[in-house]
Amino acid sequence: MPTPTSPARPATDEEFLADFLPRLTRPAEELDAHPDPAALLEAVADLGRRAVGDPDAFFTQQYLLSRIYGLHTQLPTGPTAETSTVLHAVTRRLEQDTADAEDSWIDPALYDGMPDDPAAFVAWLKGVAREHPVFKHPYYHRFLRNEATPDDLRRFVLQESSVDSRFDDLLAAMQIGTDGVTKMEIAKNFWDEMGNGNPAEVHTVLFDRIIRHFGITDEELSEHLSAEALLGGNLAVLICRYRGLFAEAVGHLAIAEWLAPDRFSQVLHAWQRLDLPPDGITYHKLHIGIDAHHASAWFAHVVKPMADSPEARRAITRGALWRLNSSGRYLDRILNLV
Amino acid sequence: MPTPTSPARPATDEEFLADFLPRLTRPAEELDAHPDPAALLEAVADLGRRAVGDPDAFFTQQYLLSRIYGLHTQLPTGPTAETSTVLHAVTRRLEQDTADAEDSWIDPALYDGMPDDPAAFVAWLKGVAREHPVFKHPYYHRFLRNEATPDDLRRFVLQESSVDSRFDDLLAAMQIGTDGVTKMEIAKNFWDEMGNGNPAEVHTVLFDRIIRHFGITDEELSEHLSAEALLGGNLAVLICRYRGLFAEAVGHLAIAEWLAPDRFSQVLHAWQRLDLPPDGITYHKLHIGIDAHHASAWFAHVVKPMADSPEARRAITRGALWRLNSSGRYLDRILNLV
Repeated sequence: MPTPTSPARPATDEEFLADFLPRLTRPAEELDAHPDPAALLEAVADLGRRAVGDPDAFFTQQYLLSRIYGLHTQLPTGPTAETSTVLHAVTRRLEQDTADAEDSWIDPALYDGMPDDPAAFVAWLKGVAREHPVFKHPYYHRFLRNEATPDDLRRFVLQESSVDSRFDDLLAAMQIGTDGVTKMEIAKNFWDEMGNGNPAEVHTVLFDRIIRHFGITDEELSEHLSAEALLGGNLAVLICRYRGLFAEAVGHLAIAEWLAPDRFSQVLHAWQRLDLPPDGITYHKLHIGIDAHHASAWFAHVVKPMADSPEARRAITRGALWRLNSSGRYLDRILNLV
Repeated sequence: MPTPTSPARPATDEEFLADFLPRLTRPAEELDAHPDPAALLEAVADLGRRAVGDPDAFFTQQYLLSRIYGLHTQLPTGPTAETSTVLHAVTRRLEQDTADAEDSWIDPALYDGMPDDPAAFVAWLKGVAREHPVFKHPYYHRFLRNEATPDDLRRFVLQESSVDSRFDDLLAAMQIGTDGVTKMEIAKNFWDEMGNGNPAEVHTVLFDRIIRHFGITDEELSEHLSAEALLGGNLAVLICRYRGLFAEAVGHLAIAEWLAPDRFSQVLHAWQRLDLPPDGITYHKLHIGIDAHHASAWFAHVVKPMADSPEARRAITRGALWRLNSSGRYLDRILNLV
């Protein structure tokens, strides 16, 4: 039985989630009538302070953000607090703390090395990626390729779902407000994700078939992602949902597409080594060719023309580093787990 | 020099806009540090109350909402208040008042007539549209077709820009969270808007060429739209930006696509009668065939399967009526103006 006067801030993160999450599937008006929004925001800010260094608080923070993003990225089956102003304030606190934490992984001196010339900048950015520990990470090049069992592949696919299961929607959101060559590049990428109009080749459908092959349940997809996997999905949503982070999204996508073919090659090798079903081969083979093409077009037609101002170069680099660093921590984590 | 203590609420709507609009292109932190957010929200709520019946207040309301939506739909050239929590509260007030006003144009008894059977519902919804005053509206069937001068066409194209200049982005936003046949229908529509990958046939590019033919300036595009044209654009953004309004978007798009071919035929007739440049003919001819196809696929593959619950039927009908009624008032206004 609940106590009649509950404390403004619950004693544990579990209690906080148990109080807050049900509010997400109640009408926005109810959350906006929260008795103490300031205490709620302070609890979220406290979570953000503890998330730096405390893995449990970091998980709670990213889990909460991913559940909130669910309201903005999934069709509801009943009422939600999607439009709530209190929810927006909570979301902004989570987003700001997440962005600040991600920025703290970047050595500010790195920005000093950015060349002014757009072509030189593209070469420099690729060099930064090539020298980053995540480039040809041992999780892909040693573990997945040569050692992983079917259970390891299952764990990998589950964690990858935070981005792969909705890559089309990320591109759709990202392209809002663009035009010309940039819009067309993203649109082509989106249309490739949609199987170029062939329902059987829609990438999320192929990915879902892999999920089902491994018998991964909806409960696992929503409850068993690591904090790092949740962060990867959250960062992708964050940079695609605000027009003011478009340049970050450009840098983020450049790295994601550029690293993908080599990564998918390692997955494909594991797939064939373990004699897993051909559906997965189709998905990964598709991405090896398509992403190489998208990456080179993206660098040439979008990154380079955009890189004509110091602000744009800095934001593109920031987005690229967000992707490199968060991917590195994600892979370190998944490799230590196995 | 600004007075040290400015009044909480400016005396006129012009003063209100003059105070508020510059804040949209300042960092979000500044708007969030607004000295009196409650007074700001009360001023917006007051605008909403006066907008019912006062054309000037209605214009100010819709102009303000369109400028705010610009932050979410256009790439910025400098700082913006896009992420501000105060801005979100202002936006929600404007959106709620706009939705309420639009609902007040719907006779609640209409919902009682909705058939339960999905196929019968589709036929009923088309019947509602056919019997609506906006169906074969005299602006298209008499005025544009037979009487309009090039200057009238220019005025028409300018007002149409509130939706036509960004239809691809509306579809991209609308499709977030969908899957299966629904996602593919919207994706195909989006890809058609993108000229099926041919940059010269991107619909917004063709539309922009018409805008340039008439010498319509950016200043006209942002400052000379009627309140009804702004409302049309705002309603389209509103239903596409929230997952909780997806069913409304489905009904809205169904009517828009279903009415388009006949409307574009009248525009085409005017275009040929006035011997206007072929660019405009391409754009309008494309839409006559494509939209008829999209409308029939949309009704068969999306509206009908979705119409299996009373809540969905009501929301689809609501979105359809928002489109019919707002389009009717828009055309009445443009016809009275000429």
